[in-house]
Amino acid sequence: MSAPAVVNLAEKLASFSDHWNPRIVGRYNGNEIRIAKVEGEFTWHSHADSDELFLVISGDFAIEFRDGLTRVAPGEMIVVPKGVEHRPVATGECQILMLDAEGEPNTGASPSEYTRQTLETL
Amino acid sequence: MSAPAVVNLAEKLASFSDHWNPRIVGRYNGNEIRIAKVEGEFTWHSHADSDELFLVISGDFAIEFRDGLTRVAPGEMIVVPKGVEHRPVATGECQILMLDAEGEPNTGASPSEYTRQTLETL
Repeated sequence: MSAPAVVNLAEKLASFSDHWNPRIVGRYNGNEIRIAKVEGEFTWHSHADSDELFLVISGDFAIEFRDGLTRVAPGEMIVVPKGVEHRPVATGECQILMLDAEGEPNTGASPSEYTRQTLETL
Repeated sequence: MSAPAVVNLAEKLASFSDHWNPRIVGRYNGNEIRIAKVEGEFTWHSHADSDELFLVISGDFAIEFRDGLTRVAPGEMIVVPKGVEHRPVATGECQILMLDAEGEPNTGASPSEYTRQTLETL
């Protein structure tokens, strides 16, 4: 087989500019590796059957939980366990990498105007 | 519940100095998020039942496949599919983040002097 693709995150992030619209940049053990640009407050939601990993690449990012706000700085990561309600909050534009189970909606079990039915693969 | 832990990758990496001895820094959907410092040539191996994700944080890192060497620069990632033989190669010290299925040996199905039976959780 030929070697697996190398993914340059900065190049992929430079290829789009809209917010809250994750792109798929790879697949790992039945999960999707996604990148996104985000800004402002997302909607409250949870993922019934998948943990969700956030790795912050740039920007002033936080996740609000029902008991308070948790800041996640660039170079930091957090794993939101399945079933836990959360709301990403970005003060200014942030760039993030995420992992979600394959096909998991970005808004989990809480459809809203932010829901993306189909995610583009870059 | 209390908020999930935030993991600062640089702080975790600064807490150890040995090579080819991954530490677990989080868990996601039955997988372990690992970080490691590596230098030199690892052993050829493959993982029968798990893909393996590499995200390079710093250093001159590459993965040798049977058909050649693939460089993976800082800010780049690669997913080695399950079953694919590979050998990480680091020219000078590199810092990497990895994902592997829970309990997957670092040398996969090819035990060697590099095999770590139990990985420390930081």
